[in-house]
Amino acid sequence: MLSTMQDVPLTVTRILVHGATVHGRSRVTTWTGDGEPHRRSFAEIGTRAVQLANALRDELGVVEGDRVATLMWNNAEHVESYFAIPAMGAVLHTLNLRLPVEQLSFIVDHAADRVILVNGSLLPLLAPLLPGMASVEHVVVVGPGDTSLLDGCRPAVHAYEELIAGRPTRYDWPELDERQAAAMCYTSGTTGDPKGVVFSHRSVYLHSMQVNMAESFSLSDRDTTFPVVPMFHVNAWGIPHAAFMTGVNMLLTDRFLQPAAIAEMIETERPTHAAAVPTIWQGLLAELAAKPRDISSLRNVVIGGSACPPSLMRAFEERHGVALCHAWGMTETSPLGTVSHPPAGLTDEEAWPYRITQGRFPASVEARLIGPDGEVMPWDGQSAGELEVRGPWIAGAYFGGVGHEPQVPEDKFRDGWLRTGDVGTISPDGYLTLTDRSKDVIKSGGEWISSVELENHLMAHPDVAEAAVVAVPDERWGERPLATVVLRDGAATDYEALRAFLADRVARWQVPERWAVIPSVPKTSVGKFDKKVIRRQYADGELDVTLL
Amino acid sequence: MLSTMQDVPLTVTRILVHGATVHGRSRVTTWTGDGEPHRRSFAEIGTRAVQLANALRDELGVVEGDRVATLMWNNAEHVESYFAIPAMGAVLHTLNLRLPVEQLSFIVDHAADRVILVNGSLLPLLAPLLPGMASVEHVVVVGPGDTSLLDGCRPAVHAYEELIAGRPTRYDWPELDERQAAAMCYTSGTTGDPKGVVFSHRSVYLHSMQVNMAESFSLSDRDTTFPVVPMFHVNAWGIPHAAFMTGVNMLLTDRFLQPAAIAEMIETERPTHAAAVPTIWQGLLAELAAKPRDISSLRNVVIGGSACPPSLMRAFEERHGVALCHAWGMTETSPLGTVSHPPAGLTDEEAWPYRITQGRFPASVEARLIGPDGEVMPWDGQSAGELEVRGPWIAGAYFGGVGHEPQVPEDKFRDGWLRTGDVGTISPDGYLTLTDRSKDVIKSGGEWISSVELENHLMAHPDVAEAAVVAVPDERWGERPLATVVLRDGAATDYEALRAFLADRVARWQVPERWAVIPSVPKTSVGKFDKKVIRRQYADGELDVTLL
Repeated sequence: MLSTMQDVPLTVTRILVHGATVHGRSRVTTWTGDGEPHRRSFAEIGTRAVQLANALRDELGVVEGDRVATLMWNNAEHVESYFAIPAMGAVLHTLNLRLPVEQLSFIVDHAADRVILVNGSLLPLLAPLLPGMASVEHVVVVGPGDTSLLDGCRPAVHAYEELIAGRPTRYDWPELDERQAAAMCYTSGTTGDPKGVVFSHRSVYLHSMQVNMAESFSLSDRDTTFPVVPMFHVNAWGIPHAAFMTGVNMLLTDRFLQPAAIAEMIETERPTHAAAVPTIWQGLLAELAAKPRDISSLRNVVIGGSACPPSLMRAFEERHGVALCHAWGMTETSPLGTVSHPPAGLTDEEAWPYRITQGRFPASVEARLIGPDGEVMPWDGQSAGELEVRGPWIAGAYFGGVGHEPQVPEDKFRDGWLRTGDVGTISPDGYLTLTDRSKDVIKSGGEWISSVELENHLMAHPDVAEAAVVAVPDERWGERPLATVVLRDGAATDYEALRAFLADRVARWQVPERWAVIPSVPKTSVGKFDKKVIRRQYADGELDVTLL
Repeated sequence: MLSTMQDVPLTVTRILVHGATVHGRSRVTTWTGDGEPHRRSFAEIGTRAVQLANALRDELGVVEGDRVATLMWNNAEHVESYFAIPAMGAVLHTLNLRLPVEQLSFIVDHAADRVILVNGSLLPLLAPLLPGMASVEHVVVVGPGDTSLLDGCRPAVHAYEELIAGRPTRYDWPELDERQAAAMCYTSGTTGDPKGVVFSHRSVYLHSMQVNMAESFSLSDRDTTFPVVPMFHVNAWGIPHAAFMTGVNMLLTDRFLQPAAIAEMIETERPTHAAAVPTIWQGLLAELAAKPRDISSLRNVVIGGSACPPSLMRAFEERHGVALCHAWGMTETSPLGTVSHPPAGLTDEEAWPYRITQGRFPASVEARLIGPDGEVMPWDGQSAGELEVRGPWIAGAYFGGVGHEPQVPEDKFRDGWLRTGDVGTISPDGYLTLTDRSKDVIKSGGEWISSVELENHLMAHPDVAEAAVVAVPDERWGERPLATVVLRDGAATDYEALRAFLADRVARWQVPERWAVIPSVPKTSVGKFDKKVIRRQYADGELDVTLL
């Protein structure tokens, strides 16, 4: 039996029109580095987005389905393109300016971007790459920059303000199917080519509602949100779309990401909400210690992108009375996957163990843990498995390129679920705790051993400076842990003592038999343990392994 | 270009499974009148909903698309049926126990309900009607009641607890299309037969997200909501679904709707949120004056169903520190249409004019005002028009009966928009102010005259006790206002004085020429002015009209 409800699609267009009218007074404040910040109302942004859409269509020939890329900081013009491009039926492709240049060229080519909007300050990055970007027909320069860098380049060059000036302030927005592409973002995986995730109008709309829900970021027009997370990083966690949906004022950094600038923005603009990766908050904490600032306006700070050190959360709370709230997600999850608000009615001490988890899932993110043998694991807070998720804003495939089928690699998708590659547990009340990446977990005799847990225990030993545990092949058990340790200055090698230390802390069968002392743990460019190097060193017989 | 997002439907099933697991500890508290309230966790409700679905399928033969009705108060078992019935693919039909009995019989017949779940306390209402309800095959009695009233009745009779006891606690929920019917509710229009509105899984899901959004009711598992509004009245404004979506604890009245009982529930169970029609809050205010109670737990009280007298809002705030928040909606809008949170940053005095409006629209409720000649009116706070709305939880038709096409009457729908029948203005920042029902507005020479505005002015005159203004036919202007007034004791009839009084307050062309003194204003059964009686009296020449 069918309902009698209207069949109205969920679109970015609706968010734009609503934000620019009902919440026309809300505003976007963009930092300028010196002097007065730049302020623009949602109504003005709405009008300029309409003018941009007219310019893209009438001057640049952009049609439905075309990819229009942005290589931009967080600023009002980027917000304009966030709405104009999807609303006209084109696809917003946010380029991550921190990608290695060969990956940047790869993704522009893979998405076949026809237009790139670029902040003038980023021309030194883009200009040298343009000759290799065959699909790009137009470059639109936003804000000041050395445009001489574009002299003689193949694509046509436009100045943003000139391009939109005087354009009509009406646009007959197309009727869109909510499953059409609205935006796309490539993951910056450490292995292989970047993979494109294509968000639909429906997924953006639903995700925006979730961001604003009381259980998530709880945002309304009474708030000012400060997304320090870049707008090229999974749509700044969906915050700009969510902001236009309910009139949340936005404070944007532009290119000013230094801790001192961030501290000044918070003190003078008084945001109520902020979102960034741990590194940013770590930098801010140090800055505030050196030069105290008033950050008391913040009532809710979301920290995500990677696990937040509990010490950082404690420090913000004790020194500044600001609660950091853990959230987990990835490009493939739009990204809102979990938020770690503790259950109600707990003391601070009781709440703490909940707050350091990854948090709870919203209704639209269905979760399951898959154990070593492919079985669904219980939510008992003990049984570990790879996290798989399903829902209307979760990727079911990767972009296959223009005119190609989407890609559904087996290591990333299973029966319509996204395999997150994260291993952890879920408590009976739905709190997720992630421990390992699935490639780092040790599959031993049908059970999983957490490398991270062993490392944390080893690093608590007074003789150990660092420890990295990796899986190595084992004839009997399939895999077994190899413990590599970096000793503190003056400490003697005593594997028996370390083994006994571990045996007191983990199940006996989890204790490694293979041990090696190494001078330092190999690290990736962003400072993470590079375990594939250790695995290769072991395979190549480069490590001096003792078998106990 | 298509997205790479998963195609996962938005369903009541997902809300049920999520609520019963991630929020399994949240609970429903049902008032029992004496002694300890009854408490049941979401996990228990989830299990019992599964057992109910098994019973309905295996014992009663309910299949997908069947209508299963409830004639019940607000209680935990009603919540169970709210989820079990849609999750199994059947349609929950909530019966309004306050409808005239002939309308109750009409809607059961029109929906062809196969099963009715009825609270034992309501058997005296249902039993006499059953012989005429040909479609009903099963009656399930929930809770204690005089079941002898059902002796010899045609449908099979079951006791709820016996029916579900021992049933399997697993159910292989069907894969549903999100546009399938989930629930239905008939409007209790004053004219013509009741009209059925059929909510989809999609509309219920989206509406639940909206209810929980910070800009609407802002509910999470930190809250206890107290929907005094009945669960047979537009799904208790969507609160039970919203509660399961984010783990909001619920306090339910069962059949105890007396002001004293409501006051005691608030004092002892300490809800943070409540929702009811003005009459309930009026009764509570009087009760609290007679017997003070602590209602300080309430941080957000939603008032809807009809316009709230500003004096009531003032009284709650001054006497009890509780802010009443105006909301507007109707059965056809699921019902969340607007909520009147004032803009941020205003003083109490500045906020007041916003708070007494109907409020602002969420992004999913697109609104327009249609003027006397069918033209779209501007949002200037001045230009009046009939409010039309569009969106994913707005009705686009009425249920036509089983096997019949949906009905799309012209006076209710226009080009895919719902005609609300309400006339008002919208401010530039999106605040809706309703003044008249469209049938009461006076269409005079291509302009609209608000009957309510004229009445309010007249009733402010010291000689006038009550005033009702209606449209009467006029050869030159199409329609003109007829002012009927009830004079205060001892006041003399002085139409010229009243006309001069009005002329100082409204535009000259709005001042009525036709006047009549009447002994009292005819009223409907719920106390509203019954203007169609006055129009008829005028047409029949029963009024002593003076033409000025």
